[in-house]
Amino acid sequence: MANASICTIGDEILIGQIVDTNSSHISAALEEIGVKVTRMVSFGDDHEEIINNLMNELTHNEIVITTGGLGPTKDDITKAALAEISGSKRYVINDGQLRMVHEILHARGLDVLDINRAQALVPEACEVIVNHLGTAPVMVFRFPKEKFGHSATIYALPGVPFEAVGAIPDVIKDIKRHNELTDIFHKCVMVFGMAESALSKEIESWEDGLPKDMHLAYLPNPLTGVRLRLSIYGGVREEEERRIDEAFARLRPILEDKIYSYKDDTLENAVGALLRGTGMTLSAAESCTGGKISSLITSVPGASEYYLGSVTSYAVPVKEKVLGVSEATINEYGVVSSEVASAMAEGVRKLTGSTYAVSTTGLAGPGGDEHNPVGTVWIGVAGPNGTKTVRKVYKNDRKRNIERFAAAALNELRLFILEDHN
Amino acid sequence: MANASICTIGDEILIGQIVDTNSSHISAALEEIGVKVTRMVSFGDDHEEIINNLMNELTHNEIVITTGGLGPTKDDITKAALAEISGSKRYVINDGQLRMVHEILHARGLDVLDINRAQALVPEACEVIVNHLGTAPVMVFRFPKEKFGHSATIYALPGVPFEAVGAIPDVIKDIKRHNELTDIFHKCVMVFGMAESALSKEIESWEDGLPKDMHLAYLPNPLTGVRLRLSIYGGVREEEERRIDEAFARLRPILEDKIYSYKDDTLENAVGALLRGTGMTLSAAESCTGGKISSLITSVPGASEYYLGSVTSYAVPVKEKVLGVSEATINEYGVVSSEVASAMAEGVRKLTGSTYAVSTTGLAGPGGDEHNPVGTVWIGVAGPNGTKTVRKVYKNDRKRNIERFAAAALNELRLFILEDHN
Repeated sequence: MANASICTIGDEILIGQIVDTNSSHISAALEEIGVKVTRMVSFGDDHEEIINNLMNELTHNEIVITTGGLGPTKDDITKAALAEISGSKRYVINDGQLRMVHEILHARGLDVLDINRAQALVPEACEVIVNHLGTAPVMVFRFPKEKFGHSATIYALPGVPFEAVGAIPDVIKDIKRHNELTDIFHKCVMVFGMAESALSKEIESWEDGLPKDMHLAYLPNPLTGVRLRLSIYGGVREEEERRIDEAFARLRPILEDKIYSYKDDTLENAVGALLRGTGMTLSAAESCTGGKISSLITSVPGASEYYLGSVTSYAVPVKEKVLGVSEATINEYGVVSSEVASAMAEGVRKLTGSTYAVSTTGLAGPGGDEHNPVGTVWIGVAGPNGTKTVRKVYKNDRKRNIERFAAAALNELRLFILEDHN
Repeated sequence: MANASICTIGDEILIGQIVDTNSSHISAALEEIGVKVTRMVSFGDDHEEIINNLMNELTHNEIVITTGGLGPTKDDITKAALAEISGSKRYVINDGQLRMVHEILHARGLDVLDINRAQALVPEACEVIVNHLGTAPVMVFRFPKEKFGHSATIYALPGVPFEAVGAIPDVIKDIKRHNELTDIFHKCVMVFGMAESALSKEIESWEDGLPKDMHLAYLPNPLTGVRLRLSIYGGVREEEERRIDEAFARLRPILEDKIYSYKDDTLENAVGALLRGTGMTLSAAESCTGGKISSLITSVPGASEYYLGSVTSYAVPVKEKVLGVSEATINEYGVVSSEVASAMAEGVRKLTGSTYAVSTTGLAGPGGDEHNPVGTVWIGVAGPNGTKTVRKVYKNDRKRNIERFAAAALNELRLFILEDHN
C-alpha cells in the first residue's frame, strides 16, 4: 500500500478566491488504484513554505502530487522550490514540451516569447511527462530510499483545472508502473427519507454484523439523501464486490424502498431511470420550489426523452389561468393546501399530456403562520391511477427549504411511479 | 495579524468523493477581517491522525478552524480527539444545543433518540456556539499561551456545508472579540459580460492608478460574473470607504452598464431591484435552461412581488400549445433560433400578462451540429416596447453551460429593462 499526499500551491486558494477541485479528481483517481491519500494540503506561493511543506509530506508519503505554481508569471515559484529539493544545479530544455509550447501558441495565433519558451525549461533532476493541454510540463522527481527512509516521488502538475485533470491518466500510469499496489473496492447505496441519525439506528444491527474488513461511511446531502458506502482494501475485485453486494442485499429488507439506487446516484436520475425507455412522460407544476424541480430533472442528460416541461405558477392568476386551479379551491383551502397541490399536479398533467406530474405549493420563507409555518410544503403527484398529496415541514433557511422541498417531491414521485409498477 | 489554519476532517474528502467548499468560504471570511490563512489541510477520520494534525496546526497558528467529523454516527470521531487534546475528562450536556436538537427534530416530525441527544454532549473544556441549522454545536477550545507559545483557539464546525457556512458569522464575531485585528475595509462592484482576462486588460490603466494602499481582487463566478473587490488595511472606516467609492466612480465611465451593482450582489437580485416597487412584473419561458432562470429569480426573498411565473417548454408541443409558438416558425427556423426565442418570450408574456419576459432556447449538451454547436443559446427579452434576441456560444459541460445561459439571460433582461428606463 502506497501513501499519497496532494498539495495545492497558490495564494488564491488560501484567500478563498477559488475552490480547489483538482485535489478531489486526483484523489478519486488514486483511490481507484489503491493508493491511500493521507492528507491534502494547501499552502501559499512562498519559497520557504513550499519547501517545508513538501519535505514534510515526503517524509510521510511515498507519493506527493502537487498542483499549481507552474505558470509563467512572477508569482509562480514552485519550479524553483522543486529544483532546490531535488538538488538540481541547472535547468535543461525539454524538447517534447518545447514543441508543445510552439504548437499551442501557434494554434492561438500568438508568437512564442522567451517567457513561453522558459516553460519547457525544467530542473535537471526531473523526468518530464509532456502536457498536451498547456505550456507547463508535468515534472516527476524520484528520490532514493536513503533520502526519506522509503522511496518517494513528486509529481508536479499545472494548477489550471483542465490541464491538471488532463494529466491524471499519465500520472496514474507512472504510479502503477513504479509501485506494488493493493486494490480498494467501493460500492454505494442511496437512501432517501431518513435523517442520518435515524438511519444509523435503523441499520445498527446490520452495521454491527458487517465483516471486520468492510468499512461503512455515511455521506448525507440535502438533495440526494444519505449515501451509504462500503469499502474493502485488498482482495480480488469480483469476490470483494460480490461480498459487498451480499451485505447490501441484507440491507434491502430493512430499508426497502427507502433505497433508491445501488450506485452513486441522484433522485432526478432515479426518476429518469424509471421513465427512460418506457414511453411514459413527466411534467411539473411548481410554486414554492420556483423551478428547482424542473432544473434538477433537466440536469440529467437525455431528460428530453421523458420530460415535457413545467409551469412555475408563482402568482395565483397563473395557477388559475394556466394550470386551471379553480378560484373556489384556492379561496376555500388556501394556496398552501392538499387541494391546490392536487389541482396543480392534475392541471399540468392535463396541459402537457404527460403520464405523470409532480407539484409543490408551500412556504420557503420568510412569512408563514401557525397553520402553515415557514418550511411547510404540500407535494402532489398525479398519474394514470389517480392523485396523491403529502405534507412535509422543514426548518431551514429559504435556499435550503427549497432544496428539501424539491428533493422530497422527486422522492414522492419516485415512490408513486414505483407503486404503479408493482 | 493572526494566522489561521483550516482543517477538513473526513475520509470522504480524501477519497475524492466530495469537493471541500467549506474551506473556501471560511478563508474568504477570515481574509475579510484580516486573518491570514497559512494552510488548509484535509485528513481522515482517524484518532491519531486528527490529534497529530491538529497539534501541528496549533503549533503554527493562533486560530485553527476544523469542519467535519461531528455527526452522530460511528465514523465521526472528531469530538473524541478534541476531548483528548483539550484534556477534557468528561462530557457535559449543553442545554442550548439540546433545545435546538429537540426543536429541529420535532419540526421534522421525528423523535429525539439517544443518538441525537448525544449531539449536545460536549467535552467539558469547550465553549459552545449553538448551531441553529443542525444538531451538532460549534465547539470552541481555547488554549493558554504556555501550551503552544502563543494563544491558540480551535473552532470545530460541522462538515455539512450549509451548517458550516451558517456558523461562520458567529465564529468571525468570536475571533474579532478575542484577537487584536487590523480593520480591513472592502467594497465590491459586480461586472458581467467580460472574461477576467479581457476585463483586466480593459481596466489596466485604472488599476495602475490605484493608490498604493488599495488592493484589487478579481473574483469570477459563472452565475454572477466578476466581482471586483477593493480592500484597504487599517484606517478610519468612513474615510477609507469614501476613497474606495471614489476609485469605483473612476471605473464607471470605463465599464458603464457592464457594472450591475456596487455591492456584493447577484444578477437575479439586480433584476429584482429594477422591478421592486414599480408595479412592473416578470415571467420566463425556458427551454435549455430547464427551470434554472426561474429558480434563480425565486431564490430572492420577496420575488413574488414582481415575479408571476414561468413555463419550461422542454418538449416542442409545450412550446406550441402553452406558449403559442407556431409550428411553422419551428419548422422554418428550427427550435434553436432567434425566431423561437422571440416567440417564447412574447408567448409567456401574453400568457401571464407580465410587463417583461425572458426566454432561452439552445443546446446545453450533448448533441449539437456545425450550425448550432453544443453551448449555443438564443436569449429573448420582451417588454412593452418590443422584443430583442441575442445569440451566445459557450464552451463548457452541460451543467456549466446551463449556468452560463441563465446568467447571460438575466443580464440581457437587466440591460433591456434599463434601456426602457432611460
